[in-house]
Amino acid sequence: MMYAMEQLYERVTQRGPVCVGLDTLSDYVPPRERRRALDDAEAVLSFNRAIIDGTIDVCACFKVQIAYYEALGLAGLRVYAQTLRYIRERGALVIADVKRGDIADTAVQYARAHFSGDLEADFVTLSPYMGMDTLTPWLSYVEDRGKGIFVLLRTSNAGMRDFEYRELQSGGRLYHEVGDRLNELALRFRGNSTFSALGAVVGCTEKDEAAELRRRWPHLFFLIPGYGAQGGAAEDAAILLGDRNGGVVNASRSILKAWTHGAQGLLPGEITFQDAARASRAGVIEMIQAIRTAVENKNRGLV
Amino acid sequence: MMYAMEQLYERVTQRGPVCVGLDTLSDYVPPRERRRALDDAEAVLSFNRAIIDGTIDVCACFKVQIAYYEALGLAGLRVYAQTLRYIRERGALVIADVKRGDIADTAVQYARAHFSGDLEADFVTLSPYMGMDTLTPWLSYVEDRGKGIFVLLRTSNAGMRDFEYRELQSGGRLYHEVGDRLNELALRFRGNSTFSALGAVVGCTEKDEAAELRRRWPHLFFLIPGYGAQGGAAEDAAILLGDRNGGVVNASRSILKAWTHGAQGLLPGEITFQDAARASRAGVIEMIQAIRTAVENKNRGLV
Repeated sequence: MMYAMEQLYERVTQRGPVCVGLDTLSDYVPPRERRRALDDAEAVLSFNRAIIDGTIDVCACFKVQIAYYEALGLAGLRVYAQTLRYIRERGALVIADVKRGDIADTAVQYARAHFSGDLEADFVTLSPYMGMDTLTPWLSYVEDRGKGIFVLLRTSNAGMRDFEYRELQSGGRLYHEVGDRLNELALRFRGNSTFSALGAVVGCTEKDEAAELRRRWPHLFFLIPGYGAQGGAAEDAAILLGDRNGGVVNASRSILKAWTHGAQGLLPGEITFQDAARASRAGVIEMIQAIRTAVENKNRGLV
Repeated sequence: MMYAMEQLYERVTQRGPVCVGLDTLSDYVPPRERRRALDDAEAVLSFNRAIIDGTIDVCACFKVQIAYYEALGLAGLRVYAQTLRYIRERGALVIADVKRGDIADTAVQYARAHFSGDLEADFVTLSPYMGMDTLTPWLSYVEDRGKGIFVLLRTSNAGMRDFEYRELQSGGRLYHEVGDRLNELALRFRGNSTFSALGAVVGCTEKDEAAELRRRWPHLFFLIPGYGAQGGAAEDAAILLGDRNGGVVNASRSILKAWTHGAQGLLPGEITFQDAARASRAGVIEMIQAIRTAVENKNRGLV
């Protein structure tokens, strides 16, 4: 079985670790194009296609946050499905950022929903609160169809201290326990890269902690969110990526709204989908460079 | 603001605590009716309507597990939306069992998705892993529109021991911590019943523990899953309901498939939607009686 995670790892090695996050609000569509669209759902779909076209050969993968589409109701969910299909038909990889987490028969249905049919993706994100048995039904798709999973471990929101970060009586923090259990399971699904088809969502801005996480779970490929939302993101990402291209770094708004910083001297009202696509492409390339520089500085011991 | 949770509490007091779970598979549709339907999605929708019609005046509310609909793709999500609308138009209350859990702008979009528009429900279930800030965007709908929330605390699957049940260094188990934090927040949203618009998902089969949970969080209304899946469910539920009708007890398969136990001497192949509706109605009434008996036995100290 060729795991999608191996393909992802190869793309990161070839191109750099950028994951383009399609957390698309209709507000992000250039006004001229938005006026031309029939409705918000159509505007979002056309915009997504333009961004995908513009970045597909420079990014490692795409991530689609389903919440933004659910918020537009059934029309939005149709756009979600069309966006996933467009990415996959063009030969790119897509993470369905759905953070599902349920048990038994319900988990079976969720796995079927997101790993087959209309809403099929290459990867999903999952939430571990209810326990390791929430993962079980997804694993047959990993085995049979090479699908990949990213489990929430340690996020970088303020609230992560509430539960993820709590110290357990048995030692370590809750997210350590989740990661250790996941890492154990992940050993069964390793590819040639030695990374597993089971990975983890890890956002972190404390450098010592980030370095420890990278060492602790050498087989977990990381999905690293939060780039562009705060300063120092390239340096933080460099530590989590480690020495072996061990993850993808997601950026959403900074790529989708790159056109708002101006495109070739055009007024915002003149900007087309093509201009937005070019700006997002430039944004991805800039991000790759920034992370590459941060990795080099780290390797030269400058950080 | 009249909270939906207050309405739910009143219905429980008047009718009993049964929540009918529409975790509907097309396999649950009587064969004769399934053959008549255009496709699985249409069969599920017609079946749901029949079950709703059959149970609406005896149950306290409905719960729709979105995974079963996502698994049918876009056609299934349309049925999900139509099922919610049908329930609400008929004046009944519905819990969207979506177990979403995300932060910041993403949580804003999820709240918009499930508390307004096409997919509007009266209540949602949420997963707390990422922290208390995952709840924030939902609270404005609680304040402004009376919506209600059930947060996952302590579930009854085997995997709940992995994380929910872990002992924290600061004392108590993880789910105690989640519950204590939730209870604190819940005080701001109490209705006349003294129950809050913020409740909790609590499944439990250990009697002492169940009694302790009921005492520990007197203002949290419980959504109690797992009825019919294992023995002794009425006794367990009675303890979690406490002395003040403090929750709803969900049953899905046992109600949806009640018709498979035979209806008025008909062969399974002869059973219609009407027969299935009657059987599910009888199933709800039987469940109310069983729980009532268990509550009486508990109050008389027989358990």
